Amino acid sequence: MERLRIDLSYDGTDFAGWAVQPGQRTVQGTVEQALAVALRLPEPARLTAAGRTDAGVHARGQVAHADVPAAALARADRLGRRLRGLLPGDIRLLSMQRAPAGFDARFSALSRRYAYRVCDDPAGPDPLRRREVLAHPRPLDLAAMTHAAEGLLGTHDFASFCRRRAGATTVRRLLVLTWQRDVDGLAVARVEADAFCHGMVRSLVGALLAVGDGRRPAGFVSEVLAAERRDPRVTVAAPHGLTLEAVGYPPDDELAARARTTRALRTGEPSG
Amino acid sequence: MERLRIDLSYDGTDFAGWAVQPGQRTVQGTVEQALAVALRLPEPARLTAAGRTDAGVHARGQVAHADVPAAALARADRLGRRLRGLLPGDIRLLSMQRAPAGFDARFSALSRRYAYRVCDDPAGPDPLRRREVLAHPRPLDLAAMTHAAEGLLGTHDFASFCRRRAGATTVRRLLVLTWQRDVDGLAVARVEADAFCHGMVRSLVGALLAVGDGRRPAGFVSEVLAAERRDPRVTVAAPHGLTLEAVGYPPDDELAARARTTRALRTGEPSG
Repeated sequence: MERLRIDLSYDGTDFAGWAVQPGQRTVQGTVEQALAVALRLPEPARLTAAGRTDAGVHARGQVAHADVPAAALARADRLGRRLRGLLPGDIRLLSMQRAPAGFDARFSALSRRYAYRVCDDPAGPDPLRRREVLAHPRPLDLAAMTHAAEGLLGTHDFASFCRRRAGATTVRRLLVLTWQRDVDGLAVARVEADAFCHGMVRSLVGALLAVGDGRRPAGFVSEVLAAERRDPRVTVAAPHGLTLEAVGYPPDDELAARARTTRALRTGEPSG
Repeated sequence: MERLRIDLSYDGTDFAGWAVQPGQRTVQGTVEQALAVALRLPEPARLTAAGRTDAGVHARGQVAHADVPAAALARADRLGRRLRGLLPGDIRLLSMQRAPAGFDARFSALSRRYAYRVCDDPAGPDPLRRREVLAHPRPLDLAAMTHAAEGLLGTHDFASFCRRRAGATTVRRLLVLTWQRDVDGLAVARVEADAFCHGMVRSLVGALLAVGDGRRPAGFVSEVLAAERRDPRVTVAAPHGLTLEAVGYPPDDELAARARTTRALRTGEPSG
């Protein structure tokens, strides 16, 4: 078998998320089917992604891998073009290549970076961007939101912001969480961590929106974090504002050594 | 009666264009209906737009006017918010205000500026922007396209690039036509004229794409222009890459004087 690294963008609007679910249109299922046709595989190859995005969540830099029979890659030069021709308009193949030794899209990843886009202009978002922008009815103080997020940085148990799954750790290392205006006036959160538990980015954003528009005091987010359990005052922000922007990996020559240790250490769900 | 100036953005994907057509979902018809409800008008007010965009064409800065009974504006303070609540997600009300004396959205306009967005990356466009970006299968030489467009600048009979209508002049003054890469690597045409005849921007773009990817020589566009009649070698670029970005008007204190002369002079269709 040969391992392929597959980089993808997608508009998550019309998908029931990344992960295959029976009877649903999913990104994973759509790409797996196209890959099986493009490679003329005897049976579909399973894809493993860096971030198992929820229904409605988008990606500009999703990374996945699949193991396929080496024989299927013999005529690999036109493979990317063939796969592109089989994918629908809401999935874009950025690149497809043989993965370096020891590469695992999920377990080799050192970091995931998400963006969350919010329009707090009372006129509402640009109609051409409404699929990836949350309309928020109240003006946001981005400096206050970035300041409130500082207490979240570093390694913590993020149980307060995770949909807990039995037995899974909710300890994560949050590397970046800042809010800035982009050139179009949107409020954009940049959120980066080693990995995220389920619903974590959207819960963090939901809590920070409440600080940014004055519904909650500055200390709210740190207070919720310290409790280490779900707080009903934290709303989970809508999925369509969220985009997986990039996944970080170590240099190729470090992959094999890391692969031996990382698989044993990580148990949580690396999803947004 | 009072005249309102209404500034709009829209995603043209799911509209049969600006202009009302029986049994079709149009931008004009949708806004006219919402305005009648918001203002509780006895009968719908007609909208007049600066650019009557075709089916599938978008706008980030469309300008329209409507004449409504002064009594309907008596409680005008919440009118914008009420109208926003009635419009669908693919139309955004940027602003609504009493028009200055002599203002006519169509005949007062000094210039219309359009953008045409093309992705010439073989991987295809970002799925989140595919509704407003043309996928072009061959790489484009933007410097060659801008250079070829220089011969089009100024006042000419653009009959070669217009869908002719009996009796209408096709003389226009082209002010700007340049191609540049934006931050996302898209090829973007900026096209500005006093007014455009029907299909003109898309025909100019279609001719320039053929120069930019090497299917036609550098002199092709000027040669077509000089013929002053439709040329079957010019393809009309698809509507979804086109966006009406802005409309230029004179200062308020010049509007009334201009209104008297302009209406008599202009006869062409000021559309993209």
